[in-house]
Amino acid sequence: MNPKRCAACKYLRRRCPKDCIFAPYFPPNDPAKFACIHRIYGAGNVSKMLQQLPDQTRAEAVESLCFEAKCRVDDPVYGCVGIIHLLQTQVQNAQNELAKTQAEVAVAQTRLSQTQNSDF
Amino acid sequence: MNPKRCAACKYLRRRCPKDCIFAPYFPPNDPAKFACIHRIYGAGNVSKMLQQLPDQTRAEAVESLCFEAKCRVDDPVYGCVGIIHLLQTQVQNAQNELAKTQAEVAVAQTRLSQTQNSDF
Repeated sequence: MNPKRCAACKYLRRRCPKDCIFAPYFPPNDPAKFACIHRIYGAGNVSKMLQQLPDQTRAEAVESLCFEAKCRVDDPVYGCVGIIHLLQTQVQNAQNELAKTQAEVAVAQTRLSQTQNSDF
Repeated sequence: MNPKRCAACKYLRRRCPKDCIFAPYFPPNDPAKFACIHRIYGAGNVSKMLQQLPDQTRAEAVESLCFEAKCRVDDPVYGCVGIIHLLQTQVQNAQNELAKTQAEVAVAQTRLSQTQNSDF
């Protein structure tokens, strides 16, 4: 047993090869990270997805996959689509509030200009 | 060959059983829907996720999984996390714009009340 196996190889109970595709992104001290991604996508699919990406984008891909997997574990029906719906509502609310406030500015400016004109 | 096999069983080249877990959500006339979800999660993982859910939530779960899978195919590095970042930026921008406009309302109202007071 190699005590320096990455978290993925430890989870999969296999030898961690020198060129292990998981090792750079799944350090041995964070076993939950791989467990979550494995539960949702499966190790084979994650490995396949990483292989299809250039090296310099893999760390970001792992982070986004982990985020999505965690969201799916937390919310098995909506996953991170639930977060997207929530954010869309927030954007909509903020835009409505903005439109209302812009109308208030327009009213206040009109009244101001009327008051100033009536001074002459 | 059963011409009424669901898109999933057709894709997996297997007989579509009477109680097929995929059939209600993957009609034969939309083969791309299953292909996409299979490519990202694998049929076994999708089946397992659906089995763990009550019947009445499965349709929504399939829709959100399909959405996430499509996002991952379109953007293999960020998937739908890219959309989340974009929406977070939109919320932030709208909130900044709102704060600016609220400040404009306050200024206009202060000037208005000063102008009105100076009339007396």
